[in-house]
Amino acid sequence: MLIVQKYGGTSVGDTNRIKSVARRVVNKHREGHRMVVVVSAMGHTTDDLIKLARDITGNPSAREMDMLLSTGEQVSIALLAMAINNLGADVISLTGPQAGIKTESIHSRARITDIDCTRLHAAIEAGQIVVVAGFQGLCDNKDITTLGRGGSDTTAVALAAALKADLCEIYTDVDGVYTADPRVVPDARQLEAITYDEMLELATLGAAVLHPRAVECAKIYGIPLRVRCSFNDNPGTIVKEESDMEKNLVVTGVTCNKNVAKLGIFGVPDQPGIAYMVFKMLADLNINVDMIVQSSMRDGVNDISFTVTQDDLRKSIETIEEIIKVVGATGYTHNPHVAMVSVVGAGMTSNPGVAAMMFGALADGEINIDMISTSDIKISCIINNNEAEKAMNILHRKFELSKVSRSNCCA
Amino acid sequence: MLIVQKYGGTSVGDTNRIKSVARRVVNKHREGHRMVVVVSAMGHTTDDLIKLARDITGNPSAREMDMLLSTGEQVSIALLAMAINNLGADVISLTGPQAGIKTESIHSRARITDIDCTRLHAAIEAGQIVVVAGFQGLCDNKDITTLGRGGSDTTAVALAAALKADLCEIYTDVDGVYTADPRVVPDARQLEAITYDEMLELATLGAAVLHPRAVECAKIYGIPLRVRCSFNDNPGTIVKEESDMEKNLVVTGVTCNKNVAKLGIFGVPDQPGIAYMVFKMLADLNINVDMIVQSSMRDGVNDISFTVTQDDLRKSIETIEEIIKVVGATGYTHNPHVAMVSVVGAGMTSNPGVAAMMFGALADGEINIDMISTSDIKISCIINNNEAEKAMNILHRKFELSKVSRSNCCA
Repeated sequence: MLIVQKYGGTSVGDTNRIKSVARRVVNKHREGHRMVVVVSAMGHTTDDLIKLARDITGNPSAREMDMLLSTGEQVSIALLAMAINNLGADVISLTGPQAGIKTESIHSRARITDIDCTRLHAAIEAGQIVVVAGFQGLCDNKDITTLGRGGSDTTAVALAAALKADLCEIYTDVDGVYTADPRVVPDARQLEAITYDEMLELATLGAAVLHPRAVECAKIYGIPLRVRCSFNDNPGTIVKEESDMEKNLVVTGVTCNKNVAKLGIFGVPDQPGIAYMVFKMLADLNINVDMIVQSSMRDGVNDISFTVTQDDLRKSIETIEEIIKVVGATGYTHNPHVAMVSVVGAGMTSNPGVAAMMFGALADGEINIDMISTSDIKISCIINNNEAEKAMNILHRKFELSKVSRSNCCA
Repeated sequence: MLIVQKYGGTSVGDTNRIKSVARRVVNKHREGHRMVVVVSAMGHTTDDLIKLARDITGNPSAREMDMLLSTGEQVSIALLAMAINNLGADVISLTGPQAGIKTESIHSRARITDIDCTRLHAAIEAGQIVVVAGFQGLCDNKDITTLGRGGSDTTAVALAAALKADLCEIYTDVDGVYTADPRVVPDARQLEAITYDEMLELATLGAAVLHPRAVECAKIYGIPLRVRCSFNDNPGTIVKEESDMEKNLVVTGVTCNKNVAKLGIFGVPDQPGIAYMVFKMLADLNINVDMIVQSSMRDGVNDISFTVTQDDLRKSIETIEEIIKVVGATGYTHNPHVAMVSVVGAGMTSNPGVAAMMFGALADGEINIDMISTSDIKISCIINNNEAEKAMNILHRKFELSKVSRSNCCA
C-alpha cells in the first residue's frame, strides 16, 4: 500500500517524540508499504515565531510571515529524516516547494492548486521514505506560501490524492473523532467511523481534530482518512464515504465553536443585489462569513445578521461602516460574546424532527437561541458563549450519544 | 551607490538588534543608495539547531543538516524585512535559492558556482531593499546546500561581485581588523586598511573577523570590503588591493589558530607519486590539509608531517591507517595539543630577515618550534598550544605592532 501519514505539532513536540514517530514510520515501511510522511512544526514553534514577529511589528507583512513560519515545518522534516535514517531506512526530506506543492498567490491562507509529483514519484520508486513539510507551498512567482493553521492536514490529503494513495492517516494527540469534545462533555464517545459530510460539518463547526479543507479534499478524491493517536496503537476513527458501522444514527456528534462573532446590519433597502454587494465586499477582504440570516420585518427594509471568526471582527466592522454608506442602511451591531453549538448527522436528512428536538432541549435548559442555521446534515444555533458547555452536555444527553447502539431518531 | 551589507549572528542576535540593523539599512537607502543586505542566523540559533540534531543522532546526514540549519537565516531575513517594512521602506526577503545562488552539490561546505541575478535585479530596480539569507544556496538537484560556518561573508562578497556593487560592508561585533586578537594581546591596534592578501592570510590563519573564502572572492573581483561594527559608527577597516595608509609596514598582524592538529607519517618510501597518493586520499574525503613538511632524514624513506583542523582529526587518523598499508609506511603519530602562530605582512617579500626575527623572538621566550611554513607574506610556526598566548604577545611586541607609524623592518 501507499500510505500518507500526517503527524501534528504535538506528535513531533520534542526529539523523543520525533524518534517515536520515526519508529512507527519505519515499522510500516518494513512491512512493505510505501510511505509519505507529512509533519507540522514542533509543538509551540509556530507560536514562538509569531511572538518574534510581534516583537518586531504589530502589523507584519503576510509574505514575510509565510517566509518566517515555513521554517517551523522545515526543522521538523530535517529532524524526522535524521531519526528515520538513524534506524537504517533510506529517507529524504522535502519542503513544500521541493515536493512540488503549488498554491494560489495568497499569503497566510493559500489553497493548493496543483502538485507536481515528479520528485515524489522518483523518491518513492527509489524505495525512499519521503518526509514532506506540511502547511506550505510555492506560488507562481516562486514565493513561499502557507496554507493557514491546520494546513498540514490539507497537505497530507492533497498528497494522498495526487499520489493516489490507498490510505491517509492523520496522527494527532487524541484517539479519534468523538461525539463531542470530551473535555466539555465527560461521557463523549469515540466514533469508529464517520462520513465525509459529517466530519466536514464537525470540522467546520470547530471540532479541532481535522481541518475542514482536508476533509473536503478527501471527499472529492475519495481518500479514506484514519484519525488516530500517535501515542498509542488504538485504531482511531475512519472517515469515508459511508459509515457502515453507524449508518442508522441520526445525530453523530455535537460540537461548539467559540471563535465566532455576530454582526448585524439594520434597515438595508430591500432591493435586488444588495445582499450580493454586502457579502462581495466582505469576500474581497478574504473575510469568511459563516451563518447568514436575513429577515424582512418592515416594509422595504431588511435586517441582515451574519457571523465571522473573532479574528475577522475588527476588519468586518470597518467594512460594515463602509457598506452602510454605500447601501444606505441605518445602523449596525456586533457581539463577540457568542458561540455556535451544532448537532451533526447524516441521518438527519430523513428525520425532520431533529431541529425541533434540539430547540426543545435548549429551551428546557433555559438557553436562549439568537440565530439558527441548518443544512442537510447539521443544525447550528448561536447562543451566549458562557452557556456553550451547558448546551453541549444537554444536547449530548438528549441525543443519547454516549450509547454505541441506539435509535436517537425523534420520528 | 549599490552597497551590499552583511550582518553576522551577533548583529541580529535579538529583535531589538534587528530593529537597529533595520534603521541603519533604511538610513543608507534614504541617502539614495541601492541596498542588498545579507544576514546570518540570529545569535545562537545555529548552535541550538545543531543541538536538536545531536539529540536525534550522533551522525546526522549532511543533506538533512543543511535542510535544518538553513532555517536559521530564513528566520532572520523574514524578521529583518518586517523591521525594515515597519520603518516605511519597501523591502523583500529572499532565501539563498530565491536569490539565485547556485552551489556545488556538496553538503555542509558547498562553494558558490553561479548567481542568477534576475530576481535580485528586478527587486533592486523596483526600489526595494533586498534582504538575502547568507550561508545557503541551491545545488543542481534542487536541494538546499550550506556554505559552511562563516559562509554568510562569502554570500555577501559573491553577491557584491555578481551585482557589481560599489562596496561590500561586513558588519560584526568588533571594530575592524586588529594587529592581533585584542583579547589575547592587550595592546593590539585596529588597522585602518589592509590588503586582500594580508587579510587572506590573517583569515586563513584563524582571525575570525572575515571568512577566507570571502576575502579570496573579494580579491578576485576587486570588491572593496569594509569590516565594521554594527553597534557604533566607527569607520572600521577597509580591505582592498593596496594599503596606502600603511604600505611601509613589513608585518601587519600576528595571529593564532588553535583549531589545528598535527599528524606525522614515518618511513614513507622515497618514490615519486607517494606524496600525491597520501594527499589525494585525504582530499577525496574533503579533509583540508594546511601545513605540509616533508623531511628526508634517512636513505630511501621520508617522514611527512602535516596539519588538519581538529574536526578532521578523527577522519584523518582513519585515513592514515589505510594510507600506511597502501604506501608501506612504518607508523604514524598525532598531536591535537598544538597551535599555529603566524606573522603576516605584504612587506615581507622584500625583507628576508622577518623569519629569523620571529624565530629569535620565540627562542628568547623559550618557546619550542615544532614545524615551520612560509609564504610570500606570512610565516607560521606550530608550537605547543598552551604557549600560544605568550607567543602572540612576544611577537606583537617584537614587531612593534601597537605603534601606528614605525619601521619594524629588520633589515
